Amino acid sequence: MNIQIGIAGYGNLGKGVETALRQAEDMTLAGVFTHRDPRFVRVFRDTPLYAWEELSEKAKDIDVLIACGGSARDLPKQTPQLAQYCHVVDSFDTHADMEAHFQRVNAACQKSGKLALIGAGWDPGLFSLLRVYMGAILPQGAISTFWGQGISQGHSDAIRQLKGVQDARQYTIPLSAKMEEARQGKPVEARTGHERECYVVCEPGVDLSALRRQILDMPHYFAGYATNVHFITSQELKQDHLSMAHGGHVIANGLLDEQQKRARMEFSMQTDSNPLYTGHILVSAARALYRLAQEGAIGCKTMLDIPPAYFSACPVRELRQKLL
Amino acid sequence: MNIQIGIAGYGNLGKGVETALRQAEDMTLAGVFTHRDPRFVRVFRDTPLYAWEELSEKAKDIDVLIACGGSARDLPKQTPQLAQYCHVVDSFDTHADMEAHFQRVNAACQKSGKLALIGAGWDPGLFSLLRVYMGAILPQGAISTFWGQGISQGHSDAIRQLKGVQDARQYTIPLSAKMEEARQGKPVEARTGHERECYVVCEPGVDLSALRRQILDMPHYFAGYATNVHFITSQELKQDHLSMAHGGHVIANGLLDEQQKRARMEFSMQTDSNPLYTGHILVSAARALYRLAQEGAIGCKTMLDIPPAYFSACPVRELRQKLL
Repeated sequence: MNIQIGIAGYGNLGKGVETALRQAEDMTLAGVFTHRDPRFVRVFRDTPLYAWEELSEKAKDIDVLIACGGSARDLPKQTPQLAQYCHVVDSFDTHADMEAHFQRVNAACQKSGKLALIGAGWDPGLFSLLRVYMGAILPQGAISTFWGQGISQGHSDAIRQLKGVQDARQYTIPLSAKMEEARQGKPVEARTGHERECYVVCEPGVDLSALRRQILDMPHYFAGYATNVHFITSQELKQDHLSMAHGGHVIANGLLDEQQKRARMEFSMQTDSNPLYTGHILVSAARALYRLAQEGAIGCKTMLDIPPAYFSACPVRELRQKLL
Repeated sequence: MNIQIGIAGYGNLGKGVETALRQAEDMTLAGVFTHRDPRFVRVFRDTPLYAWEELSEKAKDIDVLIACGGSARDLPKQTPQLAQYCHVVDSFDTHADMEAHFQRVNAACQKSGKLALIGAGWDPGLFSLLRVYMGAILPQGAISTFWGQGISQGHSDAIRQLKGVQDARQYTIPLSAKMEEARQGKPVEARTGHERECYVVCEPGVDLSALRRQILDMPHYFAGYATNVHFITSQELKQDHLSMAHGGHVIANGLLDEQQKRARMEFSMQTDSNPLYTGHILVSAARALYRLAQEGAIGCKTMLDIPPAYFSACPVRELRQKLL
């Protein structure tokens, strides 16, 4: 098996997929497609690089395209567009818009006869399927998810859009006391389970206490959360806050019988690099999608719809013998 | 959906399935089948109870049969036999014989046109699929499994078969220093990752130091393991060693790139009752198998072959909206 992979979009995530592919012996990177002028983009060694416009022509040589744009602006348009030409995987992660994205991508696939897999990252994605298994095994269980410590791109962006802000990083930090409550079977909501640490670089002369108030009161993002705001220099930001480390936990605890017998499950992840880790998940998801496509499936899928064995480069018989 | 479930075998595991089914709103317990004389078997409330011989006749009213016999003596014969009549799920757990069991069950299914799911427990089963996902995401990773603290039935049996032994319980205990090594990316073998605590009740007049030697030197079971033997009274055994609690960990750590960026994943489980927890997994597996059977599938499967969503009583659209 030698699956030809295309990468559409070449930011941190696209580079993460490019790196992850070097560990996939059953795949070849057929090309990276960028919206920028290819003359000014530097890729790893001899990675084939193309302008975005060449995609429709090159598509015939690509088995699965991995869409590496952002969830806010790129993927809602790009994934349905790319599904005209190719089987496509993305890591769309805006929970509130997931079903609308699913329907749009599915409509495109039904028209083109292609297959797509959306939301293939760690959350949504891997964490989602763990919540499914945990919930199926413990119908009378409480399942809680914790994220961090790591930078939330959406929350960092929200601060950066305020007047007088030059740059910002927002860390989501799970509260260990709340994780302990979840382990004991008490459901914990995201709002109460985390604190938010904001590191903000301001333009000169800004009223810091007014800006702090503005951040703390921002609805949906910070209002109601335990939030701390730190004002730092751009030098400090570059020095201390460029790490892409992240992590998370899914914790379930449920009753097994009518008395008091219980079971607890916990999945945790910790990575030095969020885009590299997500890149590895996308690569395994592209393999799974390719296999499903070989069976003639079309339409939009998620990681909940695909058998675990499809994600592995090992033949299923070998998996059974080694891992079962 | 109202799936009719049969339970074949009514020991601790069969009772665990009976209890778990009371939490499954989409399932009905159609009957328990026992090898013992039904007149002398007590079931929960109005659970329908039948003699084993009635199975072939009642099978037409059962959608999925959950085989709850032991892996050593019962399931190698029973699962293929039951697959003549019904779709069947078991939690066969003898790793070395898994492929032979798979082939036998598959042959029976191909003949009868039925579907079977073997090895559906926590290990093999849930832990297996976690090893598959972890390995697919981190091809350059080390994955280690730890079991316990909990009683190993096989090791307890091995001690009980020695001359002069009345009863015994063997606890498998993971070594926390070795779990820490696994978290740091060093692969740990089962042999070095655990210690074994044996609680042994002897007949009067037995040479205790000779018996201790005999246990410590037992090949495959204790030789080469960190093992402790404690001689206790049958009163102490009844008082302190009837817990069915168990647990385990799957730990992966792998390189994400050619430099030193890494990711770590860990799944852990802790249960007050091994048979109740396994019962809950078997119930969700029966649901998954039923769904797959509705699509016309036949033959033998494992949890690696079935999409996560099939295990849940929630419709997949609802799962997407809630958990993705």
